[in-house]
Amino acid sequence: MTDPVALTKALLACESVTPAQGPVFDVLEAALLPLGFTIDRFLVGHEPDGPVENLLATRDGAGTHLAFAGHLDVVPPGTGWTNGAYTPVERGGLLYGRGAVDMKGAIAAFVAAIPTEPSIPLSLIITGDEEGPATFGTCALIERMRATGVAPDLCLVGEPTSSARLGDMIKIGRRGSVNLWISVPGKQGHVAYPQLADNPIPRLVAILAEIDAIVLDTGNAWFQPSNIEVTDITVGNPATNVIPAQASARLSIRFNDEQRGTALVERIEALVRAHAPAAHVTARISGEAFLTPPGTFSTLIGDAIAARTGIRPDLSTTGGTSDARFLSALCPTVEFGLTNATMHKVDEAVEIEDLAILGEIYRDIIARVDRL
Amino acid sequence: MTDPVALTKALLACESVTPAQGPVFDVLEAALLPLGFTIDRFLVGHEPDGPVENLLATRDGAGTHLAFAGHLDVVPPGTGWTNGAYTPVERGGLLYGRGAVDMKGAIAAFVAAIPTEPSIPLSLIITGDEEGPATFGTCALIERMRATGVAPDLCLVGEPTSSARLGDMIKIGRRGSVNLWISVPGKQGHVAYPQLADNPIPRLVAILAEIDAIVLDTGNAWFQPSNIEVTDITVGNPATNVIPAQASARLSIRFNDEQRGTALVERIEALVRAHAPAAHVTARISGEAFLTPPGTFSTLIGDAIAARTGIRPDLSTTGGTSDARFLSALCPTVEFGLTNATMHKVDEAVEIEDLAILGEIYRDIIARVDRL
Repeated sequence: MTDPVALTKALLACESVTPAQGPVFDVLEAALLPLGFTIDRFLVGHEPDGPVENLLATRDGAGTHLAFAGHLDVVPPGTGWTNGAYTPVERGGLLYGRGAVDMKGAIAAFVAAIPTEPSIPLSLIITGDEEGPATFGTCALIERMRATGVAPDLCLVGEPTSSARLGDMIKIGRRGSVNLWISVPGKQGHVAYPQLADNPIPRLVAILAEIDAIVLDTGNAWFQPSNIEVTDITVGNPATNVIPAQASARLSIRFNDEQRGTALVERIEALVRAHAPAAHVTARISGEAFLTPPGTFSTLIGDAIAARTGIRPDLSTTGGTSDARFLSALCPTVEFGLTNATMHKVDEAVEIEDLAILGEIYRDIIARVDRL
Repeated sequence: MTDPVALTKALLACESVTPAQGPVFDVLEAALLPLGFTIDRFLVGHEPDGPVENLLATRDGAGTHLAFAGHLDVVPPGTGWTNGAYTPVERGGLLYGRGAVDMKGAIAAFVAAIPTEPSIPLSLIITGDEEGPATFGTCALIERMRATGVAPDLCLVGEPTSSARLGDMIKIGRRGSVNLWISVPGKQGHVAYPQLADNPIPRLVAILAEIDAIVLDTGNAWFQPSNIEVTDITVGNPATNVIPAQASARLSIRFNDEQRGTALVERIEALVRAHAPAAHVTARISGEAFLTPPGTFSTLIGDAIAARTGIRPDLSTTGGTSDARFLSALCPTVEFGLTNATMHKVDEAVEIEDLAILGEIYRDIIARVDRL
């Protein structure tokens, strides 16, 4: 059986700043082949967001098909590491290295959890681009799965969802996210002759005042309220005596499952046009909100966590987005992994003991899915 | 008697980008000495707004003391002149050169208008810094006048007030001007966790919406309505997922004689503090509004213009500020000079004929003041 600490170290020793390719995938492939997995590695995409390496590993079996999803790319190490970011070091019960908790450790724990004997159908959906634009990451893997008939019934994402203690939180959904850019044109002129100019700022201010007054919803049992933030305003007029020709603002909306990104964009567009028919609105939807309603799968995971740790996880939908937003379109998707206190930070580290415990919980999850 | 065209040319030939010193003042001094003027030239002020050269010329007489005010500095020529900016050239009835209408031509015309015989007390209040910060320009001249007992009863400012035709407009007042900078502090954070941050933009938007709704006044017989323009907004937040720590805006208020700059600043400060107690407001009052109510002096000037040109000037208070805002504190002050179509532009030019006509009107004004 795979040692999760040894496999984590081997993965951490591979430099794999997003987008990751090559060696780090070789290590994972070498660990999966003896377990009887069929490995489908492929490079996909083009500049500027690609190419990206992805790995789809499948093992046949009987019963409910469980997929484990994750990523082998990491965020840049930054400077100031006590040891090298790619030199795995154990010290004081911790294993240091970029990606220790986010999320090479969880991948190693899952590999360690895979039974050597025949079991349920299992897949590993592993991308080399989750931390980057993700244009050719999990989305490309899902396309590949559709093309090759890989259809999981349940998906476990190994993101570091635990907060203070391993197992204290799992994610059953995530808010959606959309950024909007509003640009209001005017006509430049001298402040002494306002009748000859057309200041765009009052229209932008009226737009933003109306946007600030919007209450999208009050949240629900599983989500906090949807929220609009104006994150920037730009006029760029250095001259005190000039009425500017243009004013723009940027919004960030994080929204729950009572909203749809496309509908939010339409609502903002209509509001903007009512004040400024000539305004431009550009929107970028990073992801729709999703929820895997509490049920069999989340209960099963909670039971496995409680059995091993004695604590029952919070079912949360907080935080940023994750690739679970794409996977949730396939099947019920829940995220559970290591503690996230050091993720993306210098001297990222995982409790060595947690790697074994997480492996045991993952093994129990596989067993419990097998009994469904 | 001085030839206004020859004197204009001699002044134009002197480079005198603001702040002006030396040769251009030598030319004027040489023209005034034969007319019996006492010349007081002085350098005043320090970096960064000084030193500045000023000239106060006085000639005793009997009756109402008339001062003529103006400036010998010019705005930078810029590039693209057909001939040099300091190479006076006559072509097609025009005399070209930086400062031709703003306002060396008017100074030459006034010198040409001065009677050689004894007359009313006359002063010339000529600064080398009207186009620049004006910290040590006309204000320093007024201080000098107070210190030396020069106290005019009426002041004629030679700014180019004419619009389409010489004499179609004089200025009997100007609006005041104040710029304000509003800075609202907040607390930076991640848009996914708005409860941990404090976005300053909604407060700034609320402030600006309230400011945009202000109607200061509706104007009066001599002034257009006072006006507030928001001329810039700056947040400077490049990150789509970050709530910014700071948001600021800049206002420009042009106001008539129903407002006071200091009261406007207090009003904006109170409005801002009501929304954002920690906000900073910085104000710079460029000048209070002033009005020389239509009366003896403006009628006299209008009569002189009508007698020579057949047109009666509009009494206006439009446009930017001028040094008349300082001089109006001394005595009734009216502005009348050449046409302003080419002022501050490349190939600035004066109608050669206008120089003689303006000299004749100025001479008639002196004569009419003498008969008061």
